[in-house]
Amino acid sequence: MSANNVKIAYIGGGSRGWAWNLMSDLAEARYISGQVSLYDIDFEAAKHNEIIGNKIKEDHPGVKDWTYKAEETLEGALTGADVVVISILPGTFNEMGSDVHTPEKYGIYQSVGDTVGPGGIVRALRTIPMFEKIALAVKEFCPNAWVINYTNPMTICVRTLYKVFPEIKAFGCCHEVFATQRLLATALDVVEGIKDVNRREIKTDITGVNHFTWVTGAHYKDMDLFPVYDKFIEKVLAGEYITFDKDGPKSLMFHSHEFVKMDLYKRYGAIAAAGDRHLAEFVPIEWYMKDKETVDKWGYGLTDIDWRWKTLKEKREKSRQFLTGEKPFELGISGEEGVLIIEALLGYSDFISNVNVPNMGQISNLPLGVVVETNASFRTDTVTPMVAGPLPDSLYGLIAPIVAEQEMVVEAGLTRDIELAFRAFAASNHMPLSVEDARKLFDEMIENTKEYLTEYKLP
Amino acid sequence: MSANNVKIAYIGGGSRGWAWNLMSDLAEARYISGQVSLYDIDFEAAKHNEIIGNKIKEDHPGVKDWTYKAEETLEGALTGADVVVISILPGTFNEMGSDVHTPEKYGIYQSVGDTVGPGGIVRALRTIPMFEKIALAVKEFCPNAWVINYTNPMTICVRTLYKVFPEIKAFGCCHEVFATQRLLATALDVVEGIKDVNRREIKTDITGVNHFTWVTGAHYKDMDLFPVYDKFIEKVLAGEYITFDKDGPKSLMFHSHEFVKMDLYKRYGAIAAAGDRHLAEFVPIEWYMKDKETVDKWGYGLTDIDWRWKTLKEKREKSRQFLTGEKPFELGISGEEGVLIIEALLGYSDFISNVNVPNMGQISNLPLGVVVETNASFRTDTVTPMVAGPLPDSLYGLIAPIVAEQEMVVEAGLTRDIELAFRAFAASNHMPLSVEDARKLFDEMIENTKEYLTEYKLP
Amino acid sequence: MSANNVKIAYIGGGSRGWAWNLMSDLAEARYISGQVSLYDIDFEAAKHNEIIGNKIKEDHPGVKDWTYKAEETLEGALTGADVVVISILPGTFNEMGSDVHTPEKYGIYQSVGDTVGPGGIVRALRTIPMFEKIALAVKEFCPNAWVINYTNPMTICVRTLYKVFPEIKAFGCCHEVFATQRLLATALDVVEGIKDVNRREIKTDITGVNHFTWVTGAHYKDMDLFPVYDKFIEKVLAGEYITFDKDGPKSLMFHSHEFVKMDLYKRYGAIAAAGDRHLAEFVPIEWYMKDKETVDKWGYGLTDIDWRWKTLKEKREKSRQFLTGEKPFELGISGEEGVLIIEALLGYSDFISNVNVPNMGQISNLPLGVVVETNASFRTDTVTPMVAGPLPDSLYGLIAPIVAEQEMVVEAGLTRDIELAFRAFAASNHMPLSVEDARKLFDEMIENTKEYLTEYKLP
Amino acid sequence: MSANNVKIAYIGGGSRGWAWNLMSDLAEARYISGQVSLYDIDFEAAKHNEIIGNKIKEDHPGVKDWTYKAEETLEGALTGADVVVISILPGTFNEMGSDVHTPEKYGIYQSVGDTVGPGGIVRALRTIPMFEKIALAVKEFCPNAWVINYTNPMTICVRTLYKVFPEIKAFGCCHEVFATQRLLATALDVVEGIKDVNRREIKTDITGVNHFTWVTGAHYKDMDLFPVYDKFIEKVLAGEYITFDKDGPKSLMFHSHEFVKMDLYKRYGAIAAAGDRHLAEFVPIEWYMKDKETVDKWGYGLTDIDWRWKTLKEKREKSRQFLTGEKPFELGISGEEGVLIIEALLGYSDFISNVNVPNMGQISNLPLGVVVETNASFRTDTVTPMVAGPLPDSLYGLIAPIVAEQEMVVEAGLTRDIELAFRAFAASNHMPLSVEDARKLFDEMIENTKEYLTEYKLP
Repeated sequence: MSANNVKIAYIGGGSRGWAWNLMSDLAEARYISGQVSLYDIDFEAAKHNEIIGNKIKEDHPGVKDWTYKAEETLEGALTGADVVVISILPGTFNEMGSDVHTPEKYGIYQSVGDTVGPGGIVRALRTIPMFEKIALAVKEFCPNAWVINYTNPMTICVRTLYKVFPEIKAFGCCHEVFATQRLLATALDVVEGIKDVNRREIKTDITGVNHFTWVTGAHYKDMDLFPVYDKFIEKVLAGEYITFDKDGPKSLMFHSHEFVKMDLYKRYGAIAAAGDRHLAEFVPIEWYMKDKETVDKWGYGLTDIDWRWKTLKEKREKSRQFLTGEKPFELGISGEEGVLIIEALLGYSDFISNVNVPNMGQISNLPLGVVVETNASFRTDTVTPMVAGPLPDSLYGLIAPIVAEQEMVVEAGLTRDIELAFRAFAASNHMPLSVEDARKLFDEMIENTKEYLTEYKLP
Repeated sequence: MSANNVKIAYIGGGSRGWAWNLMSDLAEARYISGQVSLYDIDFEAAKHNEIIGNKIKEDHPGVKDWTYKAEETLEGALTGADVVVISILPGTFNEMGSDVHTPEKYGIYQSVGDTVGPGGIVRALRTIPMFEKIALAVKEFCPNAWVINYTNPMTICVRTLYKVFPEIKAFGCCHEVFATQRLLATALDVVEGIKDVNRREIKTDITGVNHFTWVTGAHYKDMDLFPVYDKFIEKVLAGEYITFDKDGPKSLMFHSHEFVKMDLYKRYGAIAAAGDRHLAEFVPIEWYMKDKETVDKWGYGLTDIDWRWKTLKEKREKSRQFLTGEKPFELGISGEEGVLIIEALLGYSDFISNVNVPNMGQISNLPLGVVVETNASFRTDTVTPMVAGPLPDSLYGLIAPIVAEQEMVVEAGLTRDIELAFRAFAASNHMPLSVEDARKLFDEMIENTKEYLTEYKLP
Repeated sequence: MSANNVKIAYIGGGSRGWAWNLMSDLAEARYISGQVSLYDIDFEAAKHNEIIGNKIKEDHPGVKDWTYKAEETLEGALTGADVVVISILPGTFNEMGSDVHTPEKYGIYQSVGDTVGPGGIVRALRTIPMFEKIALAVKEFCPNAWVINYTNPMTICVRTLYKVFPEIKAFGCCHEVFATQRLLATALDVVEGIKDVNRREIKTDITGVNHFTWVTGAHYKDMDLFPVYDKFIEKVLAGEYITFDKDGPKSLMFHSHEFVKMDLYKRYGAIAAAGDRHLAEFVPIEWYMKDKETVDKWGYGLTDIDWRWKTLKEKREKSRQFLTGEKPFELGISGEEGVLIIEALLGYSDFISNVNVPNMGQISNLPLGVVVETNASFRTDTVTPMVAGPLPDSLYGLIAPIVAEQEMVVEAGLTRDIELAFRAFAASNHMPLSVEDARKLFDEMIENTKEYLTEYKLP
Repeated sequence: MSANNVKIAYIGGGSRGWAWNLMSDLAEARYISGQVSLYDIDFEAAKHNEIIGNKIKEDHPGVKDWTYKAEETLEGALTGADVVVISILPGTFNEMGSDVHTPEKYGIYQSVGDTVGPGGIVRALRTIPMFEKIALAVKEFCPNAWVINYTNPMTICVRTLYKVFPEIKAFGCCHEVFATQRLLATALDVVEGIKDVNRREIKTDITGVNHFTWVTGAHYKDMDLFPVYDKFIEKVLAGEYITFDKDGPKSLMFHSHEFVKMDLYKRYGAIAAAGDRHLAEFVPIEWYMKDKETVDKWGYGLTDIDWRWKTLKEKREKSRQFLTGEKPFELGISGEEGVLIIEALLGYSDFISNVNVPNMGQISNLPLGVVVETNASFRTDTVTPMVAGPLPDSLYGLIAPIVAEQEMVVEAGLTRDIELAFRAFAASNHMPLSVEDARKLFDEMIENTKEYLTEYKLP
């Protein structure tokens, strides 16, 4: 690929969130321009984004020149692609609703339900066949393209891509670590009075798996940030500083006091990098999710499917306004790094960030091949993970079971083995139910979402 | 060593259970004779066993000729030893009582409390410095001796020996697997009508860690025993066969319906090899130990310290009778394999059995060096583990956290780092308490047992 | 499979050496009987062996009842098979002649030329596509059968089977270790006066790769055999004992003074287990194969293709005599262990012997998956390698390059990539030629054997 | 450490080459200033450098402020150090002369003789006890300091530091890779006409062990440099471009046509990163070092000890002139990266370069713990190796034996086991001699250098 003629294929290109973010970032790229093909199972949505995308350079003269084109087939979208971006929703909010709420009948709460546990597993079963198809299409139509995944369950998506097409050049990007870098910048301000530090100046050592990634070291210039974080926690717990931003523009479900993160720091001595909603799902349920009261006490929000539906409606309206020109498409900073990464892969910069790729040695006490999240260096046509060393014993004991669960689920998905999926579901050491109750719950969740499980032989 | 002049050093040689078993087995050995030095912190008890031991050949003419001698120092006991047997109680039943019962105040039940969890961890803290001393003494006085450990927590004891003296020729033996082999022999009878099969004819593939070892394959002659076990479980659950032997000679706490083992089989598709009391401690507490009712429902017993004290009294009386000649020492079959193993190490037979040694590759997805339990071949002067391959994902997710916990505890014990011990205690994903409550519990358990923790700098 | 109805498929079943050995061993099996299907690209030869085989029980009343049947297709031979034996010659003695003698033009001598180096690599290129077909046929027609390979290059054959059908239950057997066990029994006699020790009483610890396997420990009863071997070497080198059996029944090429083996012992402190002809090919060529004089000095024979042809003629004559009844088929002890192994896999005995299987942890400092040779335990339906631990550094430096060469060759064969094959050929650190001369040699060897390389796109 | 008060301890601080380079680089540092303590077994030489160093800021106003101080003890030099630089000569040019020239009597040529093979091994035996002392002193006096080694044999020095003090924060730096980056910049000019590219703009993927490091990928901006290098080699071999710079300022021994590097590229498809003099020592001696004619043919120089002595004399004279002020100390660009690295460790920049540290997963098919050379990221107080993945099979076969040899030598050095050292010496698959001749050579080399081997029990 060369800088002024990059071809990006966007799978999930009808999206009204991630796609718009990318369009905005591309318009303001430093070096690259070219074309974006938009593929979506909702072709009309992709078509709308084509129109919206092509208007950007008219509305915003001086931005980088990008041409958008909706494509009806994966083949059309992928052929000739230098970069493939995958950001899809596996199923609808109906399925998401089942993932999250069905287990509540059995007393199992989930704050996100998209990564591990009952919701994460059933969502994965929908997702894996989709990613299998994508991997095969990449193999056929653009085997040398770089593939960037944003879809959850991240680990399982990336693992599926590599299982199906081992030579694929794929990786997964997740912004949860960025929020922790921002939190450390806040701590620098609150504790040391150092203001306006950009999160990229906070150097973090990263290890773990997606949504359960840990910061094992952090520095700002020559300053060790762990003692700073210690003092910050003291202040927060003493009520001298409030992390919870109640006036934020989004649903309360995205807000938290970071109390879970801080409690985990006390237990493990490292900073869990994801938000509290994710973190609470990875540890013993007695700690933070025993019941709604416990959730409230810890000050984070459960996934709110109604809000999802409401937002969708708003976005549709926004899309209409963009299409008609009623409102101009607004450029803004998404905070995502996709465009920077593409530029680095083209040789315009070195770049270190966290990334999800198969373990080639970066975490020496996890099995080779499983997908892990560590730092990596992005250079011309190369993504090189950085060695995180062995997980400390305490984190090893937490993360290894997650790896195990996700490996079982990938295997179940690829072999369409619903019984193996149940085994992962029931055997998880985060599953409090008896094997009989676990079965009932599983069967119900499968039944609820069977429209998206047609490739499985269901009981 | 040569067959008729084997020198065995027995550490814990004042014991009135394991020591007598060994004496009995030695008397009836096929090939070996020699001397046994008895070392015990209770020298008088060792002295009594010296007397009892030396009377055996008088009372039972024709048995192998073994001479017993109590020694006051490790140096005396170990010098010249070919084999060292370690079977000690780290602390008294008072400490054991604290290990098991203090957590009950916080709603944490433990059925054994000697391996993992609160009781296992605090017991380990007492044990590690003792094993450190033993390892150093072996290094100094008999570096080429084979060291056989029977003490719990097994994994931690063996790991400590190797950490302190990496060239040590040590391994740990545990009979829990034997019971599962006997259960499979029972299943053969119940299901197939094949009677009187010796457990040694049941060939089992073994993998895991001590007290959480799994049978992943089992055969009798050319018969696969897993389908047999399937049918056996059906019969037991249908009430057609009762595994619980209520008329057994010992405390009810050693009896169980094997319901936990059977439930785990449903979840994982492999046979957990230890007894239900051990197994229940390794999995989410909601499953089998949420409260006393749950324990009762699953039909196994909690550790009964009062019974321990009572039994001790009986054994002391028995010892007195042996000493005075009031009663003769009775020979019997212990069911342990120590003597067979010693004979194999002398070249008299090949021998395959389960053993606890550092991972040199036998379980490829656990870290090298951690102590695991698999089969091994015993041949002249060699104990060679057999490759168990990678743990299946489902078991990997269960066992890796146990490995992590025990590694942390060994490190804490060897560095006398009570805070690291607390981290293992609180960070365990089997610990339901808040970090604050965990601390209170930990401090109380440490306080209760501080007489045996003098080498630590306590808070 | 059950004892009196075992079905064996013999691929290469027209052979007049290995096949007859197996027939003889089967006749004298302790437990098993059944049928043997004979498959060979020379169907007539298989047919002859069918006739010869079926006469055995007539000529030798009381032997086990085995029925032989030649089959024209792999499907016919494999369908229903419990055990598959593979013992084929990849190509004819013409190709073998080219493998061995063409390099001599460039000053490269090879004593066997069937495992590594120029001859081994070109032979492997012929062999890999054949084993690919066999693996696919096993997958289709008898996926649960045990597959026993005797063909060379052993490592490459077994690796190919697993690469093509990862779930295959295959292993490779080689008798080179047995000869070393016999040599140690001889040493016992010469040094200690202990006579008539069966090689199976010599317990050896085995590690390495086929034909370059090392004995790192050896015992007879409680006796360490390394000091015995030290004294034995002294005697041999002092001329007090002559290992070379000049009156043996076979070509001189199979005889040796074992001088290479003894010299390697001095360098590495372990006993190389194969015969000198194999060993000399694995180490720097200056040591034992610089030129014919060096070979003579070290007292071993180079492969003698003329003798091969002569022997073939004799065997054909022998076959004719068996067929006509002119001579009865003679039963004898082959020294191979195949039948014992089959009986162990049926559950009739435990059995430890050396075996070639993928590394699942048995040699912890070689990559997982590569085929290695160590001891293994044979039990009902299970072949379990024994952990050999990490290779000692000195052997690691010798063996790792062999692994690398063979991995490259397997990859080259499976992808039909003749250039990659050349890379292995030229890059080997046993290749003394310039890259240009290596190319000339390689091209000539390929040209000579192209009749068996039709699946490759040759230059 | 903070930027304006960095304390550097320089071991080997009397040096008249490396020390002066560092002084020059420090004077022109961007961010840091502070003090340098100079330790040398030749205290007078250190004292001279103290004087020379302290004059720099007088002679060159505006440079960074550094104070130099010679110290008589390691304790004095190391106490309070933030960074330790080790650059020593183990022995004198007399010992180096023996290392290089004694093997010539047996037909073994060595172009450098400081890393592997006879010269490298004997040099290592002198070096290891010195590094043991340094590691113990770092542990005692500045355990948190970063230790940068420049001494050869690099791998062995770094491995020794970690074996003796596992928590040490040490790494080794070597500039051989830089020269290859410059060669690729030259190729860019010659082939593509792109001029004046700085070597740091050439992004290289690095893997291997020191002096036998390989470039497996190289890019300039978005350009893949391997096709460029292909064309470059063609031109060089066609005589259209001459790499040999005969007018260079130094001994001819440092010049080469890079013919060895290019030949290795043909064999292995990757670019060996060190100079031809180093490379020739790592591969079969027939290729490039069979005899002097072969060396001449390949166009590189053997180590010239006489030139070393001559240069030493010149440097002493230069030192005298600096001391007296007859000549001013000239600042210049050393091309080394030490100061940049120190600044990165202080948090002033991110920085990726090649580095020698223990394998923590960066090369997944070499054993953990052995010292390897890959890229690493230097950030605040952190050196993080980048994952190079498994060595390709061809390189694995070359590099694993080097790892093995160096591991044996480190073990021999640390245990002062001269017989183990001989085993490494004789067992190397680069040793053409018989074991008897190897012994004679070894004994002579040991005898020649025994003044520096006083800690070994020599035969």
